[in-house]
Amino acid sequence: MLSKVLRKGSNVLFKSNNTKALRMFGACNVNSLHKFGEEIESKVMNMMQTQISKPTLRPTKEREAYSEAHDKTPHCNGCHKCGSWERDIPLMTIQEAVREANRCLKCNDAPCQKGCSTSIDIKTFIYCIQNKNWYGAAKCILSDNPLGLTCGQLCPISELCARNCNVSHTEQGAIKINRLQELAVRIFKEMGVKQIRDPTRKNLPNSYKAPIAIIGAGPASLSCATFLGRMGYENVHIFEKASRGGGITSNEIPQNRAPIEEALWEVEMVEQLGVKIHYNKALGRDFSLEDLKSQGFESVFLGIGLSDPNTGVKGTSKEFALSAERARQASNFHYSKHFLTQVGSAIKKGGNQQEELIDAPKLDGHVVVLGIGDTALDCARSAFRLGAKRVTVAFRRGFQDLRANDEIFEPARYEGINFVAYASPLEYEFDSNGQIKAVKFDKNLPQNNDNDNLKYKNTNQIFSLPCDHVVQSFGCVLPDEQWVQKLKKSDTLLDINTDTQQTKAYEWMFVGGDAVGTKNLVDAVNDGKTASWYMHKYIQEKHGQKVPETPELPGFYTEIDDVDISTEICGVKMENPFGLASAPPTTSYPMIARSFDIGYDFAVVKTAVLDKDTVFNVSPRIFKVPDPLRQECSYGNIELVSEKSLKYWVEGAKQIKKDYPNKVLIGSLMAAYNQQDWIDIMHQVKDAPFDMIELNLSCPHGMNEKGMGRACGEDPDIVRDITSWVTSQTKIPIIVKITPNYGQAEILAKAAYEGGAKAVTLTNTMPGLVDPYPDGESFNGVGVEKNVAPGGSTGSILRPFAMRKCVDVAKFVPEIDIFASGGIISGDHGINYLHYGAKALQICSAVQNLDAATVFYDLKTSLQANMYANSSQKLKKNGWKGQYPPYQFEKLKTPTSVETPQKVPKILEIVGAKLAKVSPIEKMSKEIIQVPEISKDSCLECGRCYVACSDSGYQAIQFDGYNNVPRIIEEDCTGCAICVASCPVENAIKMVPRKLPYTASRGIPPSSDCPPENLITIPPYKF
Amino acid sequence: MLSKVLRKGSNVLFKSNNTKALRMFGACNVNSLHKFGEEIESKVMNMMQTQISKPTLRPTKEREAYSEAHDKTPHCNGCHKCGSWERDIPLMTIQEAVREANRCLKCNDAPCQKGCSTSIDIKTFIYCIQNKNWYGAAKCILSDNPLGLTCGQLCPISELCARNCNVSHTEQGAIKINRLQELAVRIFKEMGVKQIRDPTRKNLPNSYKAPIAIIGAGPASLSCATFLGRMGYENVHIFEKASRGGGITSNEIPQNRAPIEEALWEVEMVEQLGVKIHYNKALGRDFSLEDLKSQGFESVFLGIGLSDPNTGVKGTSKEFALSAERARQASNFHYSKHFLTQVGSAIKKGGNQQEELIDAPKLDGHVVVLGIGDTALDCARSAFRLGAKRVTVAFRRGFQDLRANDEIFEPARYEGINFVAYASPLEYEFDSNGQIKAVKFDKNLPQNNDNDNLKYKNTNQIFSLPCDHVVQSFGCVLPDEQWVQKLKKSDTLLDINTDTQQTKAYEWMFVGGDAVGTKNLVDAVNDGKTASWYMHKYIQEKHGQKVPETPELPGFYTEIDDVDISTEICGVKMENPFGLASAPPTTSYPMIARSFDIGYDFAVVKTAVLDKDTVFNVSPRIFKVPDPLRQECSYGNIELVSEKSLKYWVEGAKQIKKDYPNKVLIGSLMAAYNQQDWIDIMHQVKDAPFDMIELNLSCPHGMNEKGMGRACGEDPDIVRDITSWVTSQTKIPIIVKITPNYGQAEILAKAAYEGGAKAVTLTNTMPGLVDPYPDGESFNGVGVEKNVAPGGSTGSILRPFAMRKCVDVAKFVPEIDIFASGGIISGDHGINYLHYGAKALQICSAVQNLDAATVFYDLKTSLQANMYANSSQKLKKNGWKGQYPPYQFEKLKTPTSVETPQKVPKILEIVGAKLAKVSPIEKMSKEIIQVPEISKDSCLECGRCYVACSDSGYQAIQFDGYNNVPRIIEEDCTGCAICVASCPVENAIKMVPRKLPYTASRGIPPSSDCPPENLITIPPYKF
Repeated sequence: MLSKVLRKGSNVLFKSNNTKALRMFGACNVNSLHKFGEEIESKVMNMMQTQISKPTLRPTKEREAYSEAHDKTPHCNGCHKCGSWERDIPLMTIQEAVREANRCLKCNDAPCQKGCSTSIDIKTFIYCIQNKNWYGAAKCILSDNPLGLTCGQLCPISELCARNCNVSHTEQGAIKINRLQELAVRIFKEMGVKQIRDPTRKNLPNSYKAPIAIIGAGPASLSCATFLGRMGYENVHIFEKASRGGGITSNEIPQNRAPIEEALWEVEMVEQLGVKIHYNKALGRDFSLEDLKSQGFESVFLGIGLSDPNTGVKGTSKEFALSAERARQASNFHYSKHFLTQVGSAIKKGGNQQEELIDAPKLDGHVVVLGIGDTALDCARSAFRLGAKRVTVAFRRGFQDLRANDEIFEPARYEGINFVAYASPLEYEFDSNGQIKAVKFDKNLPQNNDNDNLKYKNTNQIFSLPCDHVVQSFGCVLPDEQWVQKLKKSDTLLDINTDTQQTKAYEWMFVGGDAVGTKNLVDAVNDGKTASWYMHKYIQEKHGQKVPETPELPGFYTEIDDVDISTEICGVKMENPFGLASAPPTTSYPMIARSFDIGYDFAVVKTAVLDKDTVFNVSPRIFKVPDPLRQECSYGNIELVSEKSLKYWVEGAKQIKKDYPNKVLIGSLMAAYNQQDWIDIMHQVKDAPFDMIELNLSCPHGMNEKGMGRACGEDPDIVRDITSWVTSQTKIPIIVKITPNYGQAEILAKAAYEGGAKAVTLTNTMPGLVDPYPDGESFNGVGVEKNVAPGGSTGSILRPFAMRKCVDVAKFVPEIDIFASGGIISGDHGINYLHYGAKALQICSAVQNLDAATVFYDLKTSLQANMYANSSQKLKKNGWKGQYPPYQFEKLKTPTSVETPQKVPKILEIVGAKLAKVSPIEKMSKEIIQVPEISKDSCLECGRCYVACSDSGYQAIQFDGYNNVPRIIEEDCTGCAICVASCPVENAIKMVPRKLPYTASRGIPPSSDCPPENLITIPPYKF
Repeated sequence: MLSKVLRKGSNVLFKSNNTKALRMFGACNVNSLHKFGEEIESKVMNMMQTQISKPTLRPTKEREAYSEAHDKTPHCNGCHKCGSWERDIPLMTIQEAVREANRCLKCNDAPCQKGCSTSIDIKTFIYCIQNKNWYGAAKCILSDNPLGLTCGQLCPISELCARNCNVSHTEQGAIKINRLQELAVRIFKEMGVKQIRDPTRKNLPNSYKAPIAIIGAGPASLSCATFLGRMGYENVHIFEKASRGGGITSNEIPQNRAPIEEALWEVEMVEQLGVKIHYNKALGRDFSLEDLKSQGFESVFLGIGLSDPNTGVKGTSKEFALSAERARQASNFHYSKHFLTQVGSAIKKGGNQQEELIDAPKLDGHVVVLGIGDTALDCARSAFRLGAKRVTVAFRRGFQDLRANDEIFEPARYEGINFVAYASPLEYEFDSNGQIKAVKFDKNLPQNNDNDNLKYKNTNQIFSLPCDHVVQSFGCVLPDEQWVQKLKKSDTLLDINTDTQQTKAYEWMFVGGDAVGTKNLVDAVNDGKTASWYMHKYIQEKHGQKVPETPELPGFYTEIDDVDISTEICGVKMENPFGLASAPPTTSYPMIARSFDIGYDFAVVKTAVLDKDTVFNVSPRIFKVPDPLRQECSYGNIELVSEKSLKYWVEGAKQIKKDYPNKVLIGSLMAAYNQQDWIDIMHQVKDAPFDMIELNLSCPHGMNEKGMGRACGEDPDIVRDITSWVTSQTKIPIIVKITPNYGQAEILAKAAYEGGAKAVTLTNTMPGLVDPYPDGESFNGVGVEKNVAPGGSTGSILRPFAMRKCVDVAKFVPEIDIFASGGIISGDHGINYLHYGAKALQICSAVQNLDAATVFYDLKTSLQANMYANSSQKLKKNGWKGQYPPYQFEKLKTPTSVETPQKVPKILEIVGAKLAKVSPIEKMSKEIIQVPEISKDSCLECGRCYVACSDSGYQAIQFDGYNNVPRIIEEDCTGCAICVASCPVENAIKMVPRKLPYTASRGIPPSSDCPPENLITIPPYKF
């Protein structure tokens, strides 16, 4: 039998070439089947295994040879050979980012946010990333941290946000917050949208014209300038001694860790707020503090860093200090600070740099770096790239108490650097030309037997490392200048109030960054941010203005935030199309009030019934639709209508409309198919100031058995009757909420329209049953019996069905307005429903899943960003799909420059705009048959396309059994695209027009009855 | 406004206690709303933020204090203090495992399998884990590797499977294959099911009675014995010099890396095959090779390891060798081999150990370990646990070429061990009592400047490490015994044929493990596996029997594999309930033939139509339903019926039934609502030997516009008509495939039954629309226009809806048989459909997603395991749900001993068995109101329950804003269970009976119309 031929269990599986011949349908079957039909005769089968869990026998040496030959472990170990300055870690792919974002718990009281110096609202930006809302994510990041991109690249998160992450101790560890942050801001950068000042900050008093000086254009300064600019200060001047801004990120940290282009973009963003930067102006060299005062600057921020290398190191001997003094004369001696600046100038191109570029130091032979901080490791890794053949980092401590954290240490380790621990430098040794030829050390071993395990002492055991170059990296100190003296606390610290960054010496002077002992880039950014508020307070109070007790810094703002998303439905205007559906999030008026505070523009109250129909809920009644990762936003519920009295809903409506007169409040009512009941209920709510009333003719469970809900909604005649009974009682617009448990929504919508309804809500939940355990018991059954009932399925699982119904109603009953409801989890879903004809969007499952505020922020920013991007011809031309970047955006040759769309259409202009993209199959073009094209860059060589095509397609993909390269056999491909659907890598396979002519394969030719138009051969498509 | 009160943007967010008072609904609203209704008056709101992306200001020192106080990074650094021998790495949780399994690509030609010495079919076992099919996973692992549990604990996967993993270089790195493997086998171990010999291996010739001796009960030997036992050898004897089996895993590797209980379980599994183990019998000491021959053993496997410590080390001086000789006399000197054995004997309890337990060595002060292999690090880490205050590992190499891999090195590094690299040992220094007081080293530095960067030389720079104990770990050698001489290749290697493990000295003798230079535990297992086949070949050929050219080793087998899963539907018997649905996987007969080879028992051919209705497909036509992770098995398609001619389906049926007479072939037909067409088509297929015919009255797209498919299936009268036309033409059973695009499946099923159908298929795909991009364009649109059409949604997304329909038909039309179809991805789904009344299961989406063979293996083993487990009272009592272990299975006090269920029912006995668990809401018990209980062990403190309850529930959870502990406010809780549904941690919240009386809250009391039974107060439930 075939199974024997194809059976796994021999080395055939491992050695086969999977050639077409080998893949032929097994012998007995070929012989017997090939006598009929071209199809069976020629159809190949594949070498995929048919019998699982039969052991394979293979001597170990074959495993060894394979492992070696197919090593997929990412080791580079070659930077010192290739000398590449490419970024160490490529950007996360979008797919990886979405996966990581899904893993994040979005903790309510998120410890990551508290572990971030700049207090970025991390869970919100990660939620946006999960929904591919890049603008929402970037806005959130940049609001709290104007240097969010470089911080994303450089933050040692194991000491910051990730240190406090609630999933740190789970199998996959803390969320890679920095990587997500970098990607989101990077994508926003590529959109080319400018930062502007929040337009509400207009007509500010003269105090906002106060001149402010900022010394240095490093991270602390740029942050300070940004917040001052956002607050409305119009006269902010940065004086930078270098010829470009960014500080160490632009000038010192090597290009492989901090690409210059991205640091300079952050400088540009500061300038977009009107901040002026004056380059090549150094305090002390080109101007003095007195000059600033005399020029009228009312407040000064010092972001000067630590500019001078530390020549000695605590604990070294006098001999060492003497020898270090002599070493400075040697041309093969380098201070890390100078070394990195020189390398930066040579390698990092861009900015306002007007001086001639300095050449990079030329190294060779053995380079010894003294010290084990970040800077030392930057020097060591750069040394490799500059020609060193061998690099050794020597340091006094052991591996237990390195100063460099793992993020910095591990890449250095993998790059091939030697580490000599316990090495206490004694002196440099010189050759006859005064060049350093070796460094002498004393072995600095742990000596004491206490529990601490970490205390070292010199042992008088001497050794030396011969070398060709030395880089001494013992940190930096404040410049030895007059004006510094009054401010100093120590050689490396200025004296400040750590709550406000204000210097103790001058009330008008604030400081941040290295000069106050800041440990990280992001701490420096926070110094500038903190200082900005207290400078503001200082200036305003000086001008007799009050500032609030609680700091209120303005967030990041762009034209996207100005996109108008107002809409109108049933003649009622709304500021935005988002509102809460009639569901658990509208259980009570306080919840509705809170949603209005957040920004939702309407709410449909939970369905009210006549008191005689009052319900009592079973418990439990809300269930997650099981998905393998507990991440999908889909629920099943057997909750009934509101348990509140009808009177509650009437009285509350009066109050809520008084408090929120501009918000739209929609009633929701249910009764049986009984005219008097409907007249009664309409009579009882006549005083409630509802702006509209939704008729719930679609509740899927519990009520239908009593003749209500979907019992009324699954018959067009009943829908028409009830609607007309209601519309005869009131003038306010009536909406009918449609059940998805009926094939043709358009028939129901038509009936509702005929009954006088102005709108339909598409749809209510669909009756479904949540998987029990394999023993038939439910995890979460009701009551004593732990039974379950079929209940309403909502959320993502409902969306394909609700969206199809939206299209059907919009196409066939255009006279009725549509509220969409059904799996609107992200802004993308929102705009899709609008494109398909909805005018307003009802949210429920997204809010069951996460808090209403985060959801609203994501929905709103995403809708605005997509509408903005869809209106930009430039983005469209560059391959953007709304705010989705083109997949290979890193490779975009032309930087996307800033462009303001001519006009962003309003919501009502895009409603239904894409209905024409949905067509019946028979109206679809057949002139192109498409075939897959596999991107070599993206393919992970898993062979899933081959598997799918073999077992569920047309056996039109070959897969080489040893080298793992899938290959399309175009002549066999019918273009079904199962390969695309089964590929685990987003966008790795795309469909392209077929190059060969195509005829459908009929197996055995059909009779002459066959419609001749279906027997044609389609030529290759010519564009 | 409220938004101001609640606004984030101040430190309030960080400092609030979220007390009830703070959570009160904001001032203005409380005053205005509280005048009506108890509900609004008392209802609290929460401190959750309402305004997102307003910057927060906080001085950096606050971040520092928080980070420090709330450090969640898992560092232990304390083993040397607590002395714990607990397993280093706790088992992965099931949820983590499923997540990791989802991330695996399940590569077809999986490189991980080729990178595994024992060639475990990794992608299959990971697929089973993804589906929580623990038995399927364990069977797959143990088939190829009988020591799958200890290998899962100890394999250095970065050198093995993971090294070749196709996702190695992605953001989250290689799949954690070892961790998944360990978990799956561990769960199987807890089931307590015995290994048995495959019952087909009966009536074997006498040659299988040949006595076989295996020397040593270490990994290689146990593996060899297992495969011999599985092949049917009845006379296999293991002679082990120690008092328990398992080799180094049981005796040497420390308990924190290899728990003894699990190693001993693997020994037990070998014994279950009838292998006899004789303890305390050492070759050379208790018997000789000659003894074995004279006792009639026909073949011998030597799994003796390397028993003697290597006293010197290559490259050390004569002085060192002399001094090492003297050191052996010192009581503070230890050879690693002896040291670990002594520690193992003291710490690892269990097995046949009859000798008195040896005490563990008592250590203190500073322990120096020489060497840097796995063993050296095991010694170093054990030293801490035995009382050492400080441990230093000294070794000759640098950090670039450690022998220990990262899996071993990193834990040692984090545990606080000091590492002295570049230390070439010169001599031991002794005190006056002959004890070692220090070790003297020469600094062994990299000297040459070549690119290699890794060559070392002594430098005559001497240093010494004072110490209180020394462990010398320079590897092991063969024993210096007479019988070894003839076999030796070197001091550490026996001389063998590496293809077969046969010794060059004796054709009857085979060797594996350390004595032939094996590098890893798993390599040793493979040595034994390889040897077993060639020992078999040697013995059989000696007895004049032939063995196949290609090795055929038997897999793992238990009673579960004997569970009968035959079924019967429409009077037709099937060996198992699985078959392919009429869909792309049955596009052609070769594909059907292959599915039969794999084991599927039936197939429904792709729907055939009259030649006049022949179709032509558009391209592309199969789409993945977008989910955030591309992992959900849900598709949308606009594929039409078969493009093949009707004749192809008729002629092919004859051939396929000839080749597979015992398989069930089901035709599938479609025509319009036209009696003559149906008569014609039935006439044309009358010669096809279909066992049944399915009528496709449900194709959701493309055909309905032509009056076929669901156009015929959405009207019960048409369904009845067509069915009766067809049943009047034939005697073979007719099945009607039902559309889900109709509210009540039971009405359609009843009509089909009335028309004479014997069965229905529930269901076809449901019309839906796949999300486009946010610019309204489709990634994968059809033809030139790139348009889309609503198409059939299948797979997971369909399951809740199809399952509900299955329940409805089974309950209300019990007279008709049911084929289930709709998202049967895992065996769990299969058994659930059976429990809900289906008799056979049609598969499609699962096979679109992965190859048909892997899917079948998973479905079958899972169904068998669940049926077996459901029949075991002991498992049920211990909290198992089918084969799902109780969540806290690690904490089970009573080990689950082996138990054979009295009787496993047959499929037809479980069909419909759980229908009674599904009940209408009004029949559900209201006497228990449940409230959540949060497990402190599992809670990750994310606050998602609080969020959901606040915005979508009843504000009945408090969440402390600083310490992050959620607390249930029982009096406010209505038991909706949104908290359970929104919790990201599986099983962290369960619902328990309420302790307080409960009355539903009505906001404002309803009128006297309200049914009094709904106004009751429910007392706390008493069990």
